[in-house]
Amino acid sequence: MTVPPSPQMSSGSARHVLAQNLKRLRAERGWSQEQLAFEAGLHRTFVAHVEREVRNISLDNIERLAKSLGVSPAALLTPSEVG
Amino acid sequence: MTVPPSPQMSSGSARHVLAQNLKRLRAERGWSQEQLAFEAGLHRTFVAHVEREVRNISLDNIERLAKSLGVSPAALLTPSEVG
Repeated sequence: MTVPPSPQMSSGSARHVLAQNLKRLRAERGWSQEQLAFEAGLHRTFVAHVEREVRNISLDNIERLAKSLGVSPAALLTPSEVG
Repeated sequence: MTVPPSPQMSSGSARHVLAQNLKRLRAERGWSQEQLAFEAGLHRTFVAHVEREVRNISLDNIERLAKSLGVSPAALLTPSEVG
């Protein structure tokens, strides 16, 4: 029995867009999840959960991740062409 | 003694940008906070707290608000020229 993705986890969802952007931006910088977590003052497993779309991240933490990646919070929620 | 705004409440913060956009988009539609809350399936006081920047809203709720306003989650976090 395949579990249908919950609305939050569907491919167009904000969680999915954020996860795609975090992975892409991290890869562009050659950063591990641990490195991103360290830069943002968060825990590695927290970043891992956000990238697996199983964490309902808060706005303040979106802002922390955006600052450490040098992008705007809006950019983290904008579907990237590649995505 | 004036309390300096916490980083999250400073004028450029994501909370501030979101609050400004919610107020503007609500006004454009002639919606009360109660109307927006009803459309998004949230409580009126929750919307009031987000607009006063005293609530660290989650991504799923940002997405709910965006959908009910007919804009993207990224648009809610994009500083508007007027803002």
